[in-house]
Amino acid sequence: MTRTRSISKELNDLAGQEVLVKGWLHTIRELGKVNFLIVRDGWGFIQCVIDKTAIVELRDIQSESIIEVIGTVVEAKQAPNGVELHNCQIVVIEAVTEQLPFELNQKRVKAKLDTFLNHAQLGFRHPKRKALLQLAAGVMAGFRHILTANDFIEIQSPKLVASATEGGANVFEVGYFGKPAYLAQSPQFYKQMMVGIFERVFEVGPVFRAEPHDTSRHINEYVSLDIEFGFIEDHTTVMAMATTVIKGIFIHLAENYSQSLNLLDISIPILPYNLPAISFSDAQDYIYRQYKEDCRGEADLAPHHERWLGEWAKKEYNSDFLYVTGYPMTKRPFYTHPNPNNPKFSNSFDLLFRGAELITGGQRLHSYPDYLQALKSRGLSPTGFESYLNAFRYGMPPHGGFAIGLERFLMQLTGAANIKEVTLFPRDMNRLEP
Amino acid sequence: MTRTRSISKELNDLAGQEVLVKGWLHTIRELGKVNFLIVRDGWGFIQCVIDKTAIVELRDIQSESIIEVIGTVVEAKQAPNGVELHNCQIVVIEAVTEQLPFELNQKRVKAKLDTFLNHAQLGFRHPKRKALLQLAAGVMAGFRHILTANDFIEIQSPKLVASATEGGANVFEVGYFGKPAYLAQSPQFYKQMMVGIFERVFEVGPVFRAEPHDTSRHINEYVSLDIEFGFIEDHTTVMAMATTVIKGIFIHLAENYSQSLNLLDISIPILPYNLPAISFSDAQDYIYRQYKEDCRGEADLAPHHERWLGEWAKKEYNSDFLYVTGYPMTKRPFYTHPNPNNPKFSNSFDLLFRGAELITGGQRLHSYPDYLQALKSRGLSPTGFESYLNAFRYGMPPHGGFAIGLERFLMQLTGAANIKEVTLFPRDMNRLEP
Repeated sequence: MTRTRSISKELNDLAGQEVLVKGWLHTIRELGKVNFLIVRDGWGFIQCVIDKTAIVELRDIQSESIIEVIGTVVEAKQAPNGVELHNCQIVVIEAVTEQLPFELNQKRVKAKLDTFLNHAQLGFRHPKRKALLQLAAGVMAGFRHILTANDFIEIQSPKLVASATEGGANVFEVGYFGKPAYLAQSPQFYKQMMVGIFERVFEVGPVFRAEPHDTSRHINEYVSLDIEFGFIEDHTTVMAMATTVIKGIFIHLAENYSQSLNLLDISIPILPYNLPAISFSDAQDYIYRQYKEDCRGEADLAPHHERWLGEWAKKEYNSDFLYVTGYPMTKRPFYTHPNPNNPKFSNSFDLLFRGAELITGGQRLHSYPDYLQALKSRGLSPTGFESYLNAFRYGMPPHGGFAIGLERFLMQLTGAANIKEVTLFPRDMNRLEP
Repeated sequence: MTRTRSISKELNDLAGQEVLVKGWLHTIRELGKVNFLIVRDGWGFIQCVIDKTAIVELRDIQSESIIEVIGTVVEAKQAPNGVELHNCQIVVIEAVTEQLPFELNQKRVKAKLDTFLNHAQLGFRHPKRKALLQLAAGVMAGFRHILTANDFIEIQSPKLVASATEGGANVFEVGYFGKPAYLAQSPQFYKQMMVGIFERVFEVGPVFRAEPHDTSRHINEYVSLDIEFGFIEDHTTVMAMATTVIKGIFIHLAENYSQSLNLLDISIPILPYNLPAISFSDAQDYIYRQYKEDCRGEADLAPHHERWLGEWAKKEYNSDFLYVTGYPMTKRPFYTHPNPNNPKFSNSFDLLFRGAELITGGQRLHSYPDYLQALKSRGLSPTGFESYLNAFRYGMPPHGGFAIGLERFLMQLTGAANIKEVTLFPRDMNRLEP
């Protein structure tokens, strides 16, 4: 007779019934009077009461072996899901006989980052690591949910592109049938072109940055949550949408991922109704007044400046988020729209989350002559940009958008020390595996 | 005073009110007595009644110019959304002065494929082309929806990988900080490893195939809808899930994308409750009997064989879909699970949609010694596969999965002659732009 399998999260509805469960041998707890076999499946744990004979029979196999258990569901308040299995018959489907590189049945994985990353395909089986990936899925789902509700449509733009230059950052070169191609460092050009078609578009996909620095905040391939939309007033319209999106993601996480949030001891940040904003120049003035460090006139903020500004927003507005607006044009890409009243500065913004850049966005140029002028003034040639520029020759509205780095978001949300801890199979200068 | 913009799909609720609309100048229709200016926005059309003076004022600008119109909403049964604007004041925001490469305000885009593709950023503004991209978004959304409902979780696996070989197919090489890396030709290894973590995973993302042939059915970068899941019986469990997913996608399209389906004159295929299936050997026998072409003993089906089988399924079962099961092991990748009763054949399947392969899937090997043996028997070394193989050393259940090519799906659904017609910015041997 073929039995239907029950999964862990269904068992609390099945008290009194005999069930078949399948999963990984997570651990055996010998407490003397009573002994537990803990089975882990894709959704949680199943506690099985077993006798000494069973323990002897399982002596030669390691944790993570694949097993099946038939048993009767009995209510047990202390057990996962409030039930346990009694009168258990155990069958080993695939025995693990080798020692694991680290234990998965402890409160946390005790492994150095590099060891963990070498065995990430195993390490992410640990419930706390698994919860990180559940949150990653939740951020993506929340992003799509709030944007679909705001009339955005999803696109998947090509990652193999003809032109190496988007704004000077490093790109990876690909051998493409005897010619060079490049990996897209963002869907920027494509999402802008798509505004001409749909007005409102979003994309969730990989981006590639050939930046040769190995820091705790950078990886060379990451998941970018991108949006772009038309008929805006200026960058403040984009900021309002960014606030909507961030709040939408947190609401989605709170409503659907509370188990993962609880396991990781994460509380959803409190967001004021209006997120605070400070202009780039005012931010530099504040840093000078408060910390006696004179960065006024510099074209960008350093990571410790962002940290100080984050602390200020927390103290002043009880906000984990702070917009910094109006960055100098020199540090922004050529498609950035200048501030019409002060063209050295841009209609752009960063959104800091707990003192680190989470979102970069702003208004883009939309008129064709402005693009030609912007390229010229930076010493760039329109060659290689023709397809992109053509979109602006044939009618494009004022538009803008932003991008959220998925892993950066998770890093700030969880307080991880290194972005690689919250990345599924990270890529850095030395790591391409697993 | 700043007015709030109304969009086309809201106007039928606003009869009698003065509104501001913004969009693209789609066309002007001079009918003598009455003249219409048709504005296109992200969601549809707005018909504006204008007088001769307005036509004269708009004489020097081309279609696709960005305009704003203030007017009064009046019910008009023949107009889009059942309303039109009267007493219109028109402001040109961005004038298009150049001739477009092709007209967008005709029933269809009259351009050769290559011309269309060179200007796809413009061509996809045409309502019928735009509808194709709406369906692409709908297929992705439907896929996620049905899988989330079946307890699958979304992953985003890396596209930069260390190893060139997954089964012999051609891969693109990337210069990665002085070493070679490769673009993933599928998320196969990653989705299998993730079964050890979540049991049930899916991914929507780009895959890269360096196949040097330029056909109407192939592109070198496409969007793959991938799933993989554990604790299956064999490939028939995977086929049952594939049927659930295909039906789920069509239900999602029918419920949410009827406007695009109607515009493209597409009816949702009728699917029998159980999709028909034929074994690979029986399929070859049938072709021999029916068409006198003897392909028995060959290791794969040719495209015209698939077409014949599709016709047979339509005639015999009134089904647009047909499973072909049990392909020979020689044509399947090394991770394929053999048929235990006849190990020359595999526990794998293709799903044909209207006589063309849409899905490839099957059961995978799950035991570590089987992997070592499978690599050895194909003359492959485990070197370079260590991370992948490690997942199987530490407990993996019987599992399987499949992949759907998004563009192939749309091609078959719409009856397009060339897959590039239904691809946003396709990549082929000669095309990397736009």
